[in-house]
Amino acid sequence: MTTSQPLNELDWTDLAGRTLACCADIAACTEEPGQITRTFLCAPMHDAHARLDRWAASLGLQTHEDAAGNWRATRRSDRPNARTLVIGSHLDSVPNAGAYDGVLGVVLGVALLDALKDTRLPYHVELVGFSEEEGVRFSVPFIGSRALIGNAGELMTVTDAQGKSVAQAITEYGLDVAQLADAQLKADVLGYLEMHIEQGPVLEAEDRSLGLVNAIAGQSRLNLTFTGKANHAGTTPMYLRRDALTGASAFVLAVENLAKSTPGLVATVGSLKPLPGAGNVIPGEVQLTLDIRHARDEVRLGALDQLLTIAGQIAEERGLTFAHELRMEEHATPMDPALTALLGEALAAEGQVATPMVSGAGHDAMLVGQVWPATMLFLRSPGGLSHHPDEAVREEDVEAALRVGTRFLKLLAAQEEAR
Amino acid sequence: MTTSQPLNELDWTDLAGRTLACCADIAACTEEPGQITRTFLCAPMHDAHARLDRWAASLGLQTHEDAAGNWRATRRSDRPNARTLVIGSHLDSVPNAGAYDGVLGVVLGVALLDALKDTRLPYHVELVGFSEEEGVRFSVPFIGSRALIGNAGELMTVTDAQGKSVAQAITEYGLDVAQLADAQLKADVLGYLEMHIEQGPVLEAEDRSLGLVNAIAGQSRLNLTFTGKANHAGTTPMYLRRDALTGASAFVLAVENLAKSTPGLVATVGSLKPLPGAGNVIPGEVQLTLDIRHARDEVRLGALDQLLTIAGQIAEERGLTFAHELRMEEHATPMDPALTALLGEALAAEGQVATPMVSGAGHDAMLVGQVWPATMLFLRSPGGLSHHPDEAVREEDVEAALRVGTRFLKLLAAQEEAR
Repeated sequence: MTTSQPLNELDWTDLAGRTLACCADIAACTEEPGQITRTFLCAPMHDAHARLDRWAASLGLQTHEDAAGNWRATRRSDRPNARTLVIGSHLDSVPNAGAYDGVLGVVLGVALLDALKDTRLPYHVELVGFSEEEGVRFSVPFIGSRALIGNAGELMTVTDAQGKSVAQAITEYGLDVAQLADAQLKADVLGYLEMHIEQGPVLEAEDRSLGLVNAIAGQSRLNLTFTGKANHAGTTPMYLRRDALTGASAFVLAVENLAKSTPGLVATVGSLKPLPGAGNVIPGEVQLTLDIRHARDEVRLGALDQLLTIAGQIAEERGLTFAHELRMEEHATPMDPALTALLGEALAAEGQVATPMVSGAGHDAMLVGQVWPATMLFLRSPGGLSHHPDEAVREEDVEAALRVGTRFLKLLAAQEEAR
Repeated sequence: MTTSQPLNELDWTDLAGRTLACCADIAACTEEPGQITRTFLCAPMHDAHARLDRWAASLGLQTHEDAAGNWRATRRSDRPNARTLVIGSHLDSVPNAGAYDGVLGVVLGVALLDALKDTRLPYHVELVGFSEEEGVRFSVPFIGSRALIGNAGELMTVTDAQGKSVAQAITEYGLDVAQLADAQLKADVLGYLEMHIEQGPVLEAEDRSLGLVNAIAGQSRLNLTFTGKANHAGTTPMYLRRDALTGASAFVLAVENLAKSTPGLVATVGSLKPLPGAGNVIPGEVQLTLDIRHARDEVRLGALDQLLTIAGQIAEERGLTFAHELRMEEHATPMDPALTALLGEALAAEGQVATPMVSGAGHDAMLVGQVWPATMLFLRSPGGLSHHPDEAVREEDVEAALRVGTRFLKLLAAQEEAR
């Protein structure tokens, strides 16, 4: 273990304050006055980039918008054959969002280069503010990170609710879709760091500022249906019922039981609709959803198999029929072990807990992690809240992230020097 | 026990056929072409009455519409100080109804007097086709039977969706609301007989044509709410959840368990809404209904108390809150023991099973039974179906009802003669 060593005499509190002020400035760049809504390639995204440009320019970084609408800033190393560290997160938002989801990670990247502006680094740094991660406008997420790794081309013909294609949207925003290939980062990348708010309650519950992410959970989402027979609630005795809701309820509890007894598994029935849904009619059909996630695909798929078997058994015992439809499946993305270990070392050196955790939500690191070693640092989400105007972050946690991030970049520099 | 004795040489099959043909004629009296919809005081109700008038006139009955819109037909006995037997059911329907709910009981009443047209009876018979039982137009049921027993006056100011009062509706239909008091049957009533389709699956499951009803179940209807905390389905581990839907599911199963283990109890959760109801969000609130019925009020109320206690325990164990609101409560109505025993005798004499059953649905007999001895005869409902265009009745069951009803009226005559 690396022991704690003092960093440069730096005013961390001031830097955290400037980080949060920049987030607030970007929050003012919105499509909807009075709330924060900044979807892919909307005009206010230019203003958000301009705000980042000002800070980056003061650090001598070269910035531009790539053809996918990503904000890019480059710090060059003077080392011959230097490799590249990518630091990024996204700048788009859900409708009526908070100020930190995605944005904080981009701004923290700039702030880290501010902290290290007088420190030589033996690697280039590419900062990326991804143009699209939330999937709001085109119902396809990760368009920005897909462009960075060179596989967004197939998305150019996808259309939004107005029938406009991604290619048209790029043109209207003022970029040249013919340059899309240049958005791909063609460099010898040593790793990718994403800092992001947790969007969950774990760090708060454990009274921790920061979390080391060692995997992004894979997930399956399904639509399920139990079908019985609708009947009069007064005239149908219990023994003659085929109640789809009591069957569905038994399944909801089975989902909870299995998830509680399987470490790291989360499984949720979020939507459940009994039909016809009248108080005096026994439900003849129930439509419900299942969302199941785990850091290891074999655990998730095994649990899903078990739950489908249980659903079939419940249906059989109750004279119901059961059907299911897979709506979405995403593989788990493990973070890079070496890079994550180094980030853990930085956490420990700064007096933070370095116990790894799993991200239950998807992030750009899922895409980037397919081609380069990736790691993630979570910041505590007060109240576990995200995708909401009250989304928040504590200034002390931002300061901790700046200290840990700076430490990480220095550890990486030492490692790279020794290479 | 009375042993089976042959009735007059009567063509029961023909009479059952005419009964069903009359139901079909009345089904053609509808507000909505192509379906059966006949709500309180709609113009087509005049046509339904006219169809009944024709048959009743052929039997020498005096008919009229009373001021509450009830169809009335009277057969006078020549016995001095004769008491009155009331036979009735309702003529209104739910929207897009079947042809038999209510209507069959009225038509069977006419058919019984047809079967006995040449038989002297020592009691008057008052046939009533109630104008309103379903509660569709004014959201208040039993307006017709309430008028017959003299307590509909307070309903005159209730308004429908168009803001029209019951009094206005009576005037528009062509009746004189000032005559409402005359709708009350002021007679020495010996009893009330209602024949009705079961609207449930019990007789079909037991392969029986007819059912003897010894009570109409009392019922309670409640709205319930479990409140927890909505959260991200991916980022919130199981141990940090306050999932309102898993709590509600435990309650749904507790309702089923208690009803299954309490003879005669039926309890149903028919509506259940998780909020926000998105597949990837843990439900923070669930709104659900409870419908609970039993022939004995103390059993129903005891079970309801138990369920509310269980709901509170579930909430406490799961970090939820629980609230409930009583929406409706109706006392159980026992049928008159002596009159029901006599109907049972008639069933047995006709070779039918006379095991009594409980009506889980409400009927006019609930209201009439408050002031006069009442009894009910159920006819099998194929598929348990009612309030649906496919609602049906078997001709053999109609014939059985005619034989049993005629036998009952004769037994009653013998009893009344001996009085």
